[in-house]
Amino acid sequence: MSLAWLDDIQWTEDGLVPVIAQQHNTGRVVMFAWMNRESLQLTVAEGYATYWSRSRQRLWRKGEESGHRQKVIDIQLDCDADVILIKIDQEGGIACHTGRESCFYRSLIDGEWQSSEAVLKDPKSIYHK
Amino acid sequence: MSLAWLDDIQWTEDGLVPVIAQQHNTGRVVMFAWMNRESLQLTVAEGYATYWSRSRQRLWRKGEESGHRQKVIDIQLDCDADVILIKIDQEGGIACHTGRESCFYRSLIDGEWQSSEAVLKDPKSIYHK
Repeated sequence: MSLAWLDDIQWTEDGLVPVIAQQHNTGRVVMFAWMNRESLQLTVAEGYATYWSRSRQRLWRKGEESGHRQKVIDIQLDCDADVILIKIDQEGGIACHTGRESCFYRSLIDGEWQSSEAVLKDPKSIYHK
Repeated sequence: MSLAWLDDIQWTEDGLVPVIAQQHNTGRVVMFAWMNRESLQLTVAEGYATYWSRSRQRLWRKGEESGHRQKVIDIQLDCDADVILIKIDQEGGIACHTGRESCFYRSLIDGEWQSSEAVLKDPKSIYHK
């Protein structure tokens, strides 16, 4: 299969593209991360999200430690071809390393970031390192 | 009011934070852009989204030309405090400069980015420059 669709993307100078992950059936935005060319190709080939971890400088198969993989339903590109939105099905219902459904669990209320969402699972029982 | 909530954010080296804009009542992700400290402060103070345009290097009050402003319903911060998700009400129902509801109107289908969404309004009639 041609890889022209990868060339259509406007990668950053570092060869990355920002990626928004959204739970396909509820619309909940669960996380934001980055992909490089290889990780996006793997995401498409395997049907599960693989990101590029900027902090660890390596491929990061989402769920590789936690088991909370993200099955890919749809991959969308924005008008400027420099942002990707993936519709996913979040296995285990937990995307955040804090044990919450979504990484976006705090809202600005009365001038403070207030948490509005319970921890579904103790991170200690998710990560066994 | 204390501005400690602004200091809580992990700004990039350029003093920016990525922002995802989501239509509050449908869950549709309509665009992705960046804010600096001043634009986020203005967004909160005015109740309408103001971004930082990296290409034009200036504040960008969303809708300043098109009239398609984004009324802010909720502002959320992610677990790492380096990504913002705003729930908005998109005036005019068009967030994209192409005249579509959302900037994410293309999906990867059969190895190609295929447009799956109609233009609601001719951009020429939105921007009068």
